[in-house]
Amino acid sequence: MAPEKKATLLIKNIGQLITMEGPVPRIGDKMKEIDLIENGGVAIAGDEILAVGKSDETAGKISLAEGCKVIDAKKCVVTPGFIDPHTHPVFSKTRHDEFEMRLLGKTYQEIAAAGGGIRASVRDLRETSVPILTEKTTHRLDMMLASGSTTIEAKSGYGLSTESEIKSLEILKNISDTHPIEIIPTFLGAHEVPDEYRENRAKYIDLLIKEMIPTIAEKKLAEFCDIFCEDGVFSIRESRKIMQAALDNGLKLKFHADELTHSGGAELAAEMGAISADHLVYISNEGIQAMAKSGTVAVLLPGTSFSLNKGYYAPARKMIENKVVVAISTDCNPGSSYSESLQMMITLAALHYKMTAAEAISAVTVNAACAVDRANRLGQLRVSRPADIIIWNMLDYRELPYHYGVNLVNKVIKKGKVVYGQ
Amino acid sequence: MAPEKKATLLIKNIGQLITMEGPVPRIGDKMKEIDLIENGGVAIAGDEILAVGKSDETAGKISLAEGCKVIDAKKCVVTPGFIDPHTHPVFSKTRHDEFEMRLLGKTYQEIAAAGGGIRASVRDLRETSVPILTEKTTHRLDMMLASGSTTIEAKSGYGLSTESEIKSLEILKNISDTHPIEIIPTFLGAHEVPDEYRENRAKYIDLLIKEMIPTIAEKKLAEFCDIFCEDGVFSIRESRKIMQAALDNGLKLKFHADELTHSGGAELAAEMGAISADHLVYISNEGIQAMAKSGTVAVLLPGTSFSLNKGYYAPARKMIENKVVVAISTDCNPGSSYSESLQMMITLAALHYKMTAAEAISAVTVNAACAVDRANRLGQLRVSRPADIIIWNMLDYRELPYHYGVNLVNKVIKKGKVVYGQ
Repeated sequence: MAPEKKATLLIKNIGQLITMEGPVPRIGDKMKEIDLIENGGVAIAGDEILAVGKSDETAGKISLAEGCKVIDAKKCVVTPGFIDPHTHPVFSKTRHDEFEMRLLGKTYQEIAAAGGGIRASVRDLRETSVPILTEKTTHRLDMMLASGSTTIEAKSGYGLSTESEIKSLEILKNISDTHPIEIIPTFLGAHEVPDEYRENRAKYIDLLIKEMIPTIAEKKLAEFCDIFCEDGVFSIRESRKIMQAALDNGLKLKFHADELTHSGGAELAAEMGAISADHLVYISNEGIQAMAKSGTVAVLLPGTSFSLNKGYYAPARKMIENKVVVAISTDCNPGSSYSESLQMMITLAALHYKMTAAEAISAVTVNAACAVDRANRLGQLRVSRPADIIIWNMLDYRELPYHYGVNLVNKVIKKGKVVYGQ
Repeated sequence: MAPEKKATLLIKNIGQLITMEGPVPRIGDKMKEIDLIENGGVAIAGDEILAVGKSDETAGKISLAEGCKVIDAKKCVVTPGFIDPHTHPVFSKTRHDEFEMRLLGKTYQEIAAAGGGIRASVRDLRETSVPILTEKTTHRLDMMLASGSTTIEAKSGYGLSTESEIKSLEILKNISDTHPIEIIPTFLGAHEVPDEYRENRAKYIDLLIKEMIPTIAEKKLAEFCDIFCEDGVFSIRESRKIMQAALDNGLKLKFHADELTHSGGAELAAEMGAISADHLVYISNEGIQAMAKSGTVAVLLPGTSFSLNKGYYAPARKMIENKVVVAISTDCNPGSSYSESLQMMITLAALHYKMTAAEAISAVTVNAACAVDRANRLGQLRVSRPADIIIWNMLDYRELPYHYGVNLVNKVIKKGKVVYGQ
């Protein structure tokens, strides 16, 4: 008989305990449902959840280990740790100059001509040492954690050479070994065609397929392969070829799709069984139908539309109505959206996607777990699941979108340990 | 001969020391100028600035007191402490339900009919005990301080009775005695006509003029008097009468003007020599000319337009071009803009007002000092001024609008003491 598990951490007096225990993914009207226990309590044994329920009952059902830490939530809200399913955190230089150029009316072409865009970050990443990149990336992850993200997907894609793509992914792997945030790595060598292949893109695609993807897969440096599928970057035909190589090498798929124009990326992602298709500002009705059918998660990035300030936002409500699985992410990157905070994204999703607080919470917990293929492990507060938990400084979960631009987190718990807000 | 002042705190190795030492206020193109010392240093003696300059020179010119604390800014940015010139922080209940009703398409009238709006906060304030209001207000001030605001203007206006307006202002006074934030109190009894006077507004105006204003002035509970001058709230005629009483009682003037429609509030504010007119979403060309002429500061509240999400923003560029003194504020309040962060407002000012980082910094330092009639004391890093200073986690001040939704503050210093980020 296994020894009885004892609680090492107890959170009591929770005003609203949001468990998200219901259906996964949350589709259509189900996104509006919030699984809420008033006067709740959560008991944790080691890195797992031991009990979830009414505060009194939870305390009564379990026994406490010696030295069990007890946290009084003071009637505040507790939710699952947030999952950020689309980030580009490995870079050194900020690109604040491009932000200012944009607000002064410069076009994408003018900014690129002045040396800006993804290629600026590629030069930066290649030139910058591993210790500096590690320090800067770690600082960003610290800020994500402080904002409530306990798991993130993180992409390479500013290297665009075998060596520097490996460098990015190894930095993520090394940080992952010690940082509380759980990192799910994605290879994004197909983010752009680098300068040295501008005149011979076929050769770069060859490099991706024959060298980069097999090497990354063999070294187990990435779980996903992503691509910027867009007219002028990688076409549908090129994307199909590259992503087939990724599948052949055992990588799961994500797509940057329909971000700048409708190019059919959503349809291709659905056709190829991608786990997610992201951005989708210009998704077509056919794309929406295809994603609903395939179950490919739509990862929406409201901060990118906000920060680029063009006035176009992904048709989130249409996707929800058509039963697409919708998640939300920061897109944290030095060009189009430099923010580590999913709280900020929840406010933007409310204002610009017209998503309620409950829908937005679904989108950064259970549905975001689906977007990183962790639906069976993350995004819910349930017995035996990892104890990834946020204790908030608010009495009602609907304060999340409304009270904006500040950090409402009180404490973050990752795998049973308080990692922010001691 | 006075004894030589010795440094009690030294900040060295500042990558960009933003002193804002130039002209005050910053008008027109002057707003674009940033006073920046590379490799700067600041020495502080007690609560005042002792020296400002190049890091090496500053250190060479002064002598250090025993136990002088030295902070290495690690090449980061240092600015004056921010000044938030328009806040409503004294309330208990959040109004997150109204935020959600708005995004679901409910009108202002429907929300009011459901018990929402300013009158909901009036019921809340009257019912809530002083200790609870004090605790909640203090928490908001802690968040403002953490975001870099070292001075705020704070209004009453959810009491709307002599007793409860005094209660609000006394809460601010008591917090001010111990909290690091400097609070400049404003009486806003003319925020709305309370329920009990809906059928007899003349009687409420009489109460304002004959009882509330003289009592508040006599008790020295407020430095400013503010009014919601708007069709349907207080008309131009009523506003002139009420604000004349404020002037007669020695209070300085602020106006909520042209927020929902063009009602001529800006013109009246200018005519009456108000220190500031705030909101100004619907200001007329005549209003702009009048304010430029009178020197009345335009306090713009981008968060209110953002949070209400109607798509209308104050014509900031037009005001800047026409030489109006422009400041920015959070409007922190439970209805139309619940945010404590001027950093967030700087991002919104960039995206929606097209203000550069330099202009926005002018707007929350020197020009915000003008908006609270403290131009000679606050908003600049100069010898003998109060040592109100922000040390940032960024290498370039232009990161401020661009890196959004998170707190970029490393440390906040108020009157020479590190009060956030030890």
